[in-house]
Amino acid sequence: MSKSIEFWYDFGSNYSYLSVMRIGPLAAQLGVQVVWRPFLLGPIFQSFGWETSPFVLQKEKGEYVWKDMERQAAKFSLPFKRPTVFPRTAILATRVALLGAEQPWCEAFSQRIMQRNFADDREIGDADLVTTVLEELGLAVPDVLAAAQSEANKLALRNQVEQARAKGLFGAPSFTVGSELFWGNDRLEDALYYAAGQTAPSITTVAPLM
Amino acid sequence: MSKSIEFWYDFGSNYSYLSVMRIGPLAAQLGVQVVWRPFLLGPIFQSFGWETSPFVLQKEKGEYVWKDMERQAAKFSLPFKRPTVFPRTAILATRVALLGAEQPWCEAFSQRIMQRNFADDREIGDADLVTTVLEELGLAVPDVLAAAQSEANKLALRNQVEQARAKGLFGAPSFTVGSELFWGNDRLEDALYYAAGQTAPSITTVAPLM
Repeated sequence: MSKSIEFWYDFGSNYSYLSVMRIGPLAAQLGVQVVWRPFLLGPIFQSFGWETSPFVLQKEKGEYVWKDMERQAAKFSLPFKRPTVFPRTAILATRVALLGAEQPWCEAFSQRIMQRNFADDREIGDADLVTTVLEELGLAVPDVLAAAQSEANKLALRNQVEQARAKGLFGAPSFTVGSELFWGNDRLEDALYYAAGQTAPSITTVAPLM
Repeated sequence: MSKSIEFWYDFGSNYSYLSVMRIGPLAAQLGVQVVWRPFLLGPIFQSFGWETSPFVLQKEKGEYVWKDMERQAAKFSLPFKRPTVFPRTAILATRVALLGAEQPWCEAFSQRIMQRNFADDREIGDADLVTTVLEELGLAVPDVLAAAQSEANKLALRNQVEQARAKGLFGAPSFTVGSELFWGNDRLEDALYYAAGQTAPSITTVAPLM
């Protein structure tokens, strides 16, 4: 039986950026297959009565988050620049990622969109930006864009969001293994160990974190 | 110059429980002195317009938190039982901890109060429970309780909460090193490395977490 993990991420979510960059090699190390599940957090936040990200709604936490992101990005050796617009909505990019979720290019596409947002401070909601990324990946751009914007794929994204809600997701990134839910980039390793059928190592000292 | 970290915790906070149990040995390993700063999160939440913990206010996250706590406690080899009352308020215990913050018994006292709440499901707001814990530690109970409930110490706790607010704290546990703020048990190691003047090791694979 193959070991797999469902990886739920939103292109506007800063902590999703960290996981999009990290999950591939980590999962490979543990022999876990990643099922890429791009979705939109906006409708879920709206169902809680929130108009935007809790990082915007709660000023104190919001100020902290960007400091934390700087430190976390440095820790994981990832480029980071605080986006001047937050949270960005990237419906076209999300539709493309969903279309490609089972294709080998999904990871590279998702990483590039994330880097445009969180390292280059670019507007990832723009169709031109999505087009450029697809070109960089050597894909048949008109075909991909047409399929991404087909009624079937739009419906698929709505279904994706409904499935996220049904699984009890309330933030991103999230990881699911069957009915088991893990929330946040901070739980990526734990979720992967769980998916691999291994117990996460018991941590009782600083040293093992090295 | 001695290396130190200020450790802000609330006896009702489940993630503070994890840090109260973990911080001592970890800090010792890195040669960092822990400044114990028990405080009350309630007044800070109230200043945000919240009547209780966000884990109670947000149902979806609240349901997740207890599952996460089970897994985290297992990961750190700590006993855990979901408290039947949450969040518990423990003003007397907090006053005692503040009184003893610079005494060698503060850590053991804080750990025992936390375990009564999060491993034994006991009402840590009760004076009898606090008395029993002080007796277990061999302390002069009447003297400690009288000093804890003195006007000076009550004022000291109000000042403690004000200092927490002034530092931008919005949750617990939190760790501060000068003006640098780290939030959550998930950042304990990072905060300690920072306090020790060391760069947290760059993590790029699962294996180093072992």
